[in-house]
Amino acid sequence: MPTLTGSNYIAGEASSLGTSTFTSVNPRTRQLGDLPFHNATPDEIHRAVTAAVAAFEQTRHYPTARLADFLDRAAYEINALGDELLQTADMETGLGLPRLTGERGRTTGQLQAFAALLREGTYVEAIIDTAQPDRQPAPRPDIRRMLIPIGPVGVFSASNFPFAFAVAGGDTASAWAAGCPVVVKGHPGHPATSELFAHAINRAILALGFPSGWFSLLQGNTIEVGQLLTVHPGLEAIGFTGSLRAGRAIYDSAARRERPIPVYAEMGSVNPVVILPQAIATRAEALAEGLAASATLGSGQFCTNPGLVFLIENDQTESFINLYRDKMAARAPGVLLNEQIERGLEHAVADTQSRPAVHTLTGGLVVEGDAFCYANTVLRTTAADFIADQSLQTEHFGPVTLIVVCQSRAELESAIRALHGNLTATIHAEVAEIDLAEAIFSLLREKVGRLLWNGFPTGVEVVHAQQHGGPYPATTAPATTSVGLTSIRRFQRPVAYQNMPDVLLPDALKNANPLGIWRIIDNQFTRQPLA
Amino acid sequence: MPTLTGSNYIAGEASSLGTSTFTSVNPRTRQLGDLPFHNATPDEIHRAVTAAVAAFEQTRHYPTARLADFLDRAAYEINALGDELLQTADMETGLGLPRLTGERGRTTGQLQAFAALLREGTYVEAIIDTAQPDRQPAPRPDIRRMLIPIGPVGVFSASNFPFAFAVAGGDTASAWAAGCPVVVKGHPGHPATSELFAHAINRAILALGFPSGWFSLLQGNTIEVGQLLTVHPGLEAIGFTGSLRAGRAIYDSAARRERPIPVYAEMGSVNPVVILPQAIATRAEALAEGLAASATLGSGQFCTNPGLVFLIENDQTESFINLYRDKMAARAPGVLLNEQIERGLEHAVADTQSRPAVHTLTGGLVVEGDAFCYANTVLRTTAADFIADQSLQTEHFGPVTLIVVCQSRAELESAIRALHGNLTATIHAEVAEIDLAEAIFSLLREKVGRLLWNGFPTGVEVVHAQQHGGPYPATTAPATTSVGLTSIRRFQRPVAYQNMPDVLLPDALKNANPLGIWRIIDNQFTRQPLA
Repeated sequence: MPTLTGSNYIAGEASSLGTSTFTSVNPRTRQLGDLPFHNATPDEIHRAVTAAVAAFEQTRHYPTARLADFLDRAAYEINALGDELLQTADMETGLGLPRLTGERGRTTGQLQAFAALLREGTYVEAIIDTAQPDRQPAPRPDIRRMLIPIGPVGVFSASNFPFAFAVAGGDTASAWAAGCPVVVKGHPGHPATSELFAHAINRAILALGFPSGWFSLLQGNTIEVGQLLTVHPGLEAIGFTGSLRAGRAIYDSAARRERPIPVYAEMGSVNPVVILPQAIATRAEALAEGLAASATLGSGQFCTNPGLVFLIENDQTESFINLYRDKMAARAPGVLLNEQIERGLEHAVADTQSRPAVHTLTGGLVVEGDAFCYANTVLRTTAADFIADQSLQTEHFGPVTLIVVCQSRAELESAIRALHGNLTATIHAEVAEIDLAEAIFSLLREKVGRLLWNGFPTGVEVVHAQQHGGPYPATTAPATTSVGLTSIRRFQRPVAYQNMPDVLLPDALKNANPLGIWRIIDNQFTRQPLA
Repeated sequence: MPTLTGSNYIAGEASSLGTSTFTSVNPRTRQLGDLPFHNATPDEIHRAVTAAVAAFEQTRHYPTARLADFLDRAAYEINALGDELLQTADMETGLGLPRLTGERGRTTGQLQAFAALLREGTYVEAIIDTAQPDRQPAPRPDIRRMLIPIGPVGVFSASNFPFAFAVAGGDTASAWAAGCPVVVKGHPGHPATSELFAHAINRAILALGFPSGWFSLLQGNTIEVGQLLTVHPGLEAIGFTGSLRAGRAIYDSAARRERPIPVYAEMGSVNPVVILPQAIATRAEALAEGLAASATLGSGQFCTNPGLVFLIENDQTESFINLYRDKMAARAPGVLLNEQIERGLEHAVADTQSRPAVHTLTGGLVVEGDAFCYANTVLRTTAADFIADQSLQTEHFGPVTLIVVCQSRAELESAIRALHGNLTATIHAEVAEIDLAEAIFSLLREKVGRLLWNGFPTGVEVVHAQQHGGPYPATTAPATTSVGLTSIRRFQRPVAYQNMPDVLLPDALKNANPLGIWRIIDNQFTRQPLA
């Protein structure tokens, strides 16, 4: 295993030109790590993107099978990091070895799932409209369209998933799968973990003979590193997972570029959960237990954390709220990722508590001790107040639930209409109230990317059909997803060929269909060759 | 036929609250029309978007068959406008009845093509991953994903296609097909034409019982009308066709909204055409003739007008340039759409002519007379100068060709690498030079949305496979198209359903597949029901 160096990795080479450094912090002890990590300098950022542009000249011609082999090899090399990866990440994030072991499997599984998608091949969305030479008044040309890679991509790692939404996480995997080189801005909360990933990726690059600029890792705990990456003219798109404030800043910077580029930012979400009366009547205990488990999973530091619970008031409401409060209070509060999250949570909850209509049922304070830690918290307000005060939709990134008690179905509907965009929405209901559930789902659908029935929103399956996105402020790009196989589309763009000789067409569009992929030919789905 | 009123049409009602007005101008005579058209007021803009938001509450539940019926009916009502539409548009644009007759067919055909796409049904992109209840360590949920309409859309009409890129043009047709109400900002160059379309559309709305807010027409010749529409919180997306300056201004405004929305702006393009030596040796006459016909089509006022021609210098270069110059000079210059275009063209060409490395071979001046008119113009420069001066990539929106003479293949490749984004790129070549063509296409592909072989870029087929888009500044959204059936995706977004009872699923995702559409189930394309 290579020793950690604290360097950036620019196109395969360790680079630590900068004098400004930072270190890991153990969130369980607040102890600083020994190794200084070097903030990337403007020159290093420029070299990373320039190398990615140069790499793209080669990789844009690679057959999909070669890209697939790289994804598999990257997964292999990540696994080969072994326990060092898990222990390093645990030291930097406090997330615990079982969770990190599962997240590593998700991360490598994601790379392998994209490899399988590439080998199947249909993801290039080939569409062919054949010529009509005799059409009047003018012949119709032959037009064939497919998706190609967009070019070098900048990826901003998240803190809360140090594997699955980080250096070799979903954004990077989908960009690579599309054929795009990636420059990652590692999250400053886990720089050693990021560096281990860089070592693994660079081994995969060497093993498969990819150009070194296919991947670079920039370390940085300053706003400047991310800003300079965002505005570099060599980038064609940006993937981001993190806070609304940081995501919006990057979106704004990218929009102000001379040549704007798309920013796929997955930001905050409060993930409303509606619990209908029959569900409480039937299974209050299991509901409260399941909700508390979901709300405290990963110390509540999930994009899909259920932060908002809507109830329609009846004679069971108070006992259910008390039950939930007790379950949250009884659970040992978990370690938070870092000081910024602890402080941000403290301020966000304090701001919410300062609203006259909000009552604190449990928690609402930092837990003193060595670790970064915040008490499991339950707040309560009314639908009328929720509707009147948009600030009550602010995300509390941690183990915090705001319960919104509605006087009536009509008030519930009004509250849902007032919701901002979210990643998910959930209804708990029994079959007897399915008509009500249907009406509420219909309203919720306009606000989110994923609807759940009798479940909990944490845990985002990496499958073809997954949609991890939603209207702003959940994301800056509601037509896309950052999890699931269609996330590759963020880094593809269509190109059409008109009257092109077969020999000049990419394999996906050739008459013989040598890749054997599904295509739409003259509006019919088929895997047949074109006669 | 209803009489023209000069009003805005807000959710079916004529409205002319504003005191600021403008008129049509006949581009052949510069004569002003009699009828004053009222600039939409802030209140009218607000009412239009509010009505669209209200309409969406209904239309988002419509079965696709109902949307398809509307599209067909709109096509019928547009045809029913008869000669009045053609004559009105001809008076306002000077484009001529034959061209306008063809454009009307394209416009109604586009609506009908989307109707057929909806009836086939697969365009919702249903993907299903079935549950794995026995998976360890946790069961895998059932996840099903499809595309739904994004919500109310603002559409900015173009001047150069008063039917096909205007009130009921491609942006509107694709937004409606997706299920989205549309608020159109009509182009001030053809307000009477816009109003006729509003009459036809409102008849279709009444006939099919659609909510009145499904469509509104805002008239306006001020920047303010478009700006207020762009920032209205009720909109979810914007479609735009027009100049780089206007498109960028709308993009910037939308990006600065509290809740940013996507702007699908199709803007300028110079559409490089590369003519390789063997093609000139084999068919100089036909090439020069075809190129001149394409460059002067619609008086050069096409997004796909071939504004840039690259040649590799040899002993035939001068004679080909002279041949092309003579053909351009011999063609009678056409009428331009309006004074703004004439002035803009005059300034843009004068600016290009002022560069020391640019020589004017013919044209380069306004044609005096009653009509708005600019001489067919051929300019010439060298590849070295083209590479050194990015301003030589500025679009001249009219019958203007800039010929770039390259000393070598290497210089041609450098010039292509220096290109900005464009809608199209074309190569003319013979089979003997196909290897060179392939290398050049490979470079051009990174710059454009459509590649043509031995053709001319004007004339954009409305087919499933069409790609009318490209990297900035051709568009603000290179992953999308504004022509062709996949343009509907701009106005759709995905939503996933997790563990949803079949009865609560949309038809497209139900087990039985009642729509009979193609779906991806557990990574396999199939039209079969789910057992």
